[in-house]
Amino acid sequence: MTMPDSLRTVEFKDNKVIMIDQTKLPTKLVFVEYDDFNEVAHAIRTLIVRGAPAIGVSGAFGLALAALQSNATVRDELLSDLEDARKVLFETRPTAVNLGWGLEKIMSVAKTGDSADQIRELVIFTAKKMADDDIKINKALGKHGSVLLDDNDTIMTHCNAGALATVAYGTALGVIRATKESGKNVKVIATETRPVQQGSRLTAFELKHDGFDVSLIPDTAVGYSMANGLVDKVIVGADRIVRTGHVFNKIGTYQVAIMAKRHGAPFYVAAPLSTIDMQTLAKDVIIEMRKASEVTGVGDMRTAPDDITVINPAFDMTPPELISGIITEKGVVMAPYEESIPKLFQAN
Amino acid sequence: MTMPDSLRTVEFKDNKVIMIDQTKLPTKLVFVEYDDFNEVAHAIRTLIVRGAPAIGVSGAFGLALAALQSNATVRDELLSDLEDARKVLFETRPTAVNLGWGLEKIMSVAKTGDSADQIRELVIFTAKKMADDDIKINKALGKHGSVLLDDNDTIMTHCNAGALATVAYGTALGVIRATKESGKNVKVIATETRPVQQGSRLTAFELKHDGFDVSLIPDTAVGYSMANGLVDKVIVGADRIVRTGHVFNKIGTYQVAIMAKRHGAPFYVAAPLSTIDMQTLAKDVIIEMRKASEVTGVGDMRTAPDDITVINPAFDMTPPELISGIITEKGVVMAPYEESIPKLFQAN
Repeated sequence: MTMPDSLRTVEFKDNKVIMIDQTKLPTKLVFVEYDDFNEVAHAIRTLIVRGAPAIGVSGAFGLALAALQSNATVRDELLSDLEDARKVLFETRPTAVNLGWGLEKIMSVAKTGDSADQIRELVIFTAKKMADDDIKINKALGKHGSVLLDDNDTIMTHCNAGALATVAYGTALGVIRATKESGKNVKVIATETRPVQQGSRLTAFELKHDGFDVSLIPDTAVGYSMANGLVDKVIVGADRIVRTGHVFNKIGTYQVAIMAKRHGAPFYVAAPLSTIDMQTLAKDVIIEMRKASEVTGVGDMRTAPDDITVINPAFDMTPPELISGIITEKGVVMAPYEESIPKLFQAN
Repeated sequence: MTMPDSLRTVEFKDNKVIMIDQTKLPTKLVFVEYDDFNEVAHAIRTLIVRGAPAIGVSGAFGLALAALQSNATVRDELLSDLEDARKVLFETRPTAVNLGWGLEKIMSVAKTGDSADQIRELVIFTAKKMADDDIKINKALGKHGSVLLDDNDTIMTHCNAGALATVAYGTALGVIRATKESGKNVKVIATETRPVQQGSRLTAFELKHDGFDVSLIPDTAVGYSMANGLVDKVIVGADRIVRTGHVFNKIGTYQVAIMAKRHGAPFYVAAPLSTIDMQTLAKDVIIEMRKASEVTGVGDMRTAPDDITVINPAFDMTPPELISGIITEKGVVMAPYEESIPKLFQAN
């Protein structure tokens, strides 16, 4: 089956970073161009680009811009400029592990360069390769995950773990793409995903754009949909997975997992190895709290009284006992995760 | 403790129905006046007034207007006009039982009248008395419920079962009002309640207006709030309770109940006896499906792609095993509900 190419979320071209401005979706498909790493940091902070793998690559592209912006002519001077840029980029969002991973990867490659010019070349080459690898990884991940889905399944997904959360293709939606490419029929139910509506604005948009059968529900209708037999399986992405199998993902994931458990629907998490953090304990992961205005209104429309207190966590934690499997580019692992996750990192 | 009077949601005054236009909240507190029962039907259909007890009384007020609008001079002619109006009013919304209850009550009283003039008097008197009784019932219900809450509890509520869902005072929020009046400190977490945001637009507005400590969360943060120990108990209202204790309430209630069970938070339902339907089986209750545009946008802001398929049920069903107690004006009943609910209707 031939499939249309998915959207390209972020790209490095002619020494510029080109991104889809995701805050304009679904009404306008607008591309923005940056030649300053500070603009990239701003884009990550304001969700012009989001999704753990996409911000990992965006961070790397930000460092590529920083390398080009720097007037340094000697090695250590350029490394110092890069380190300054790394800090700015790193502080944009705390929960997803891929951002730090992407920045570290570029910094360690930069340090292998002998001259400023060589470092510039290495940084740009590596950042571009990370973007290409992201697509390859998602396609491998999608193929592994596709065997878990049956013909005519309806898959619920929460938030956006699609092409728009990665460089292209997607993680959770990559599995759905690969399933369709394998010849199986698959339908999707996308949750709206308040407060920033990344389910209705991005997932519903992306899947409809690419010709998938997708229905939209408000976040309140997860239970109704499952209780009425509308959902066969659930697949979501992840912003950070720790070695115990605790998954940090968009706020609301935890309750979708609980509902899936209650209704006997398998609950899968799809993420590349770069999302797995072998160092940090679940209790030490910082949950980003975002501003109240994301909850008190939509666009210019106010939907809550003035000065109301708001609790607006961007992420929540889903414990391993609710997770039927974690789908990666190296295969699918299942509980006990403390044993299965480390094996993913062993040489093969 | 003296408390400010709660908002008066619906009122019959100078032969007019006066309502708060709840579609304008929280930005504007606007009252609308109607002298035509068709306007009342429109108001119920478009959520200018909503909440099971409030639409029960609004239906009765609609019939009072119909009695005044009718030119009938003889008894049977007026009864026939009232019956026509009853049908129009009844067909506005299918799930809440109180609407049919309010309309039936007025019709049966109307039939006891000997003349057209006497019927007009009876209908108006009874409709006004229903409104007054609604407040009394809520205060009694609130008092019974208040003993279930402890000092310094934080209560989660979903949607709006407050003054704005009733004539005044409220059911779920009536319990919270009564608890505060009894001298106990109580905080509230209100869910946004997509798609129509009756939690942020109405509950957060109403509680803040009346000086309560209230925080707002998106519907996706129910699990996070409970997992992080922010919620002691949950109280919601109901649109219909059947004799087996199955509760039909605003979409999302079911998943809040599941999360409460998971985290050991008692889950209470507060509703007057007029919300209990002893005739219908749970499987036969019609779940109202509402239009897609409630989910695809907020105000003029589009948040989903064009022509997306939407599943937008207004209500869901919470099974009795998730319900710690049902709070009524006659006291609190607990499982087994098939035994405890019928006792509420026995003469005392």
